[in-house]
Amino acid sequence: MEEWHDRAQAVAAFGGGHGLHASLSALRVLVDDLTVDELTAIVTVADNGGSSGRLRREFDVLPPGDLRMALAALCGSDDWGTTWAEVLQHRFAGDGEMQGHNLGNLLIVGLWELLGDHVKALDYVGRLLGAKGRVLPMALTPMDITAQVRGLVPDHPDALVAVRGQVEVATTEGVIDSIALVPEDPPAAPAALDAIAGADWVFIGPGSWFTSVIPHLMVPALRGALLETPARIVVVLNLAEQAGETPGFGPADHLAVLLEHAPSLKVDTVLADASSVGDGLAELREAVEACGARLVLDDVSVGDGTPRHDPVKLARAYAAIMAG
Amino acid sequence: MEEWHDRAQAVAAFGGGHGLHASLSALRVLVDDLTVDELTAIVTVADNGGSSGRLRREFDVLPPGDLRMALAALCGSDDWGTTWAEVLQHRFAGDGEMQGHNLGNLLIVGLWELLGDHVKALDYVGRLLGAKGRVLPMALTPMDITAQVRGLVPDHPDALVAVRGQVEVATTEGVIDSIALVPEDPPAAPAALDAIAGADWVFIGPGSWFTSVIPHLMVPALRGALLETPARIVVVLNLAEQAGETPGFGPADHLAVLLEHAPSLKVDTVLADASSVGDGLAELREAVEACGARLVLDDVSVGDGTPRHDPVKLARAYAAIMAG
Repeated sequence: MEEWHDRAQAVAAFGGGHGLHASLSALRVLVDDLTVDELTAIVTVADNGGSSGRLRREFDVLPPGDLRMALAALCGSDDWGTTWAEVLQHRFAGDGEMQGHNLGNLLIVGLWELLGDHVKALDYVGRLLGAKGRVLPMALTPMDITAQVRGLVPDHPDALVAVRGQVEVATTEGVIDSIALVPEDPPAAPAALDAIAGADWVFIGPGSWFTSVIPHLMVPALRGALLETPARIVVVLNLAEQAGETPGFGPADHLAVLLEHAPSLKVDTVLADASSVGDGLAELREAVEACGARLVLDDVSVGDGTPRHDPVKLARAYAAIMAG
Repeated sequence: MEEWHDRAQAVAAFGGGHGLHASLSALRVLVDDLTVDELTAIVTVADNGGSSGRLRREFDVLPPGDLRMALAALCGSDDWGTTWAEVLQHRFAGDGEMQGHNLGNLLIVGLWELLGDHVKALDYVGRLLGAKGRVLPMALTPMDITAQVRGLVPDHPDALVAVRGQVEVATTEGVIDSIALVPEDPPAAPAALDAIAGADWVFIGPGSWFTSVIPHLMVPALRGALLETPARIVVVLNLAEQAGETPGFGPADHLAVLLEHAPSLKVDTVLADASSVGDGLAELREAVEACGARLVLDDVSVGDGTPRHDPVKLARAYAAIMAG
């Protein structure tokens, strides 16, 4: 199938944090080589910790941190773009009131206050960076993640306890059963819905599974758009379980909990790192077949023992997937 | 004399705060109409109040506020430039830790931390804005203004008391006799010295006289450059006395204290607002003649009763002065 050679592809990438940063760093390579001509990041906005949490509490705005990181990942390749990406990512040190704030977070919040338009403000920062794609929030109001967590009540290992807040969920000592959003039906950005409807490919993950990847599926408008889009959906699995979020989870478990949160989602491809799958391969193959998808095993990790995706390897894997 | 028609002029503008903002807003008009082709602002960095003071104390950096305001004044005229100027000037509201910080101050401090080069960082912000000129600090280390102030000791009206800090000096209830800097000989930016040496015209003022205008003359390297430059020096007088700094001062007194701080300074032109001079005209004329300069009276105030310069009128007056 050489269809992808005929025209460049439109891509929407879902996630947040370092996982989305890696995925976008891969996709910008494909923008540079003209495989991708439209790239939209749709980014989680449920953070309540760190600089984002402080700004959210002080100004009642969307937490800007994941949006900032996505913008930095998409910066232009010249000295101008890369310097501004460093400026966005710059974190104030010291021990005063600015300590820990990222400059990009402050810039985004200031632009929101000034322009009164989330999307326009992010487009301004994107233009400043010469960004290779557009960055949009997954919803236009701040929200909290809540989780039903097992194992927090002594003597009642199966009792479910509600935990609220991204930080609290991501660091729970129990086992997460499911997540939900408060509010349940936050308004999505129309531009995000358009990007999903117009995409050829949607990439979901990698990233903190319950707090950066699955939350998108809990925004009803986004989930609806994902169920209707003609785009082929690629789930990019993490390289390892994550303490707090997915302790003891194998690759098949990651796929399973994602599908439990969006049972009708039609997944086209599941991408896993060949050397990270280990003993979980048979189970993963079974789970992928059960949902009618194809499993792609590739070398996509940095290979230094840390569970991080290598953007260049990931770009090659994405291109191969898009080539059919 | 039509010399100025033959080639565009190089201008260096000295000052700080709102006064320099007005002067630069005028000079950018002359950049647009090609009267001026090189414009350099040399900006006071002795502020210890507000957002600048907080950042200075937190990070031991130059106070960025006056530099930010000068950059905003020089922004490009298109939507991009004017929006980024507004972004720089945007001041966080609320009652939290960000309250009162200007976004541009944070951006400048972050760039200083990241690039480790004051001038390069300011050039980056200038390029972001599409600025019509360059903005440089008057020195490369933070400094304090100290003043000898009369009238603070009951029963000893002529006793001099040392007051330290820009805010403290600008709001003293006594009468300022003279100012000095701590440290006495801060390092000047080589680019600032080059700009003075290469200027056709130097504009000093308007602005807070003792804390934004005269401090430049107390930086030995700048004063030396001003004494040696072939540029013609224009002193732009304020429209009124200023509570705290110059209560009871007429226009001639403003000129006199400036020259007391730089006795060898060769002033070419003194510009005063015709309707603001009032009773002080004869005394001013005498003082200007005494220092061998010409006096230009023009209509340069906004004319609404507030002591503010109108940038368009000021541009016209500057152009007329430069035309000889």
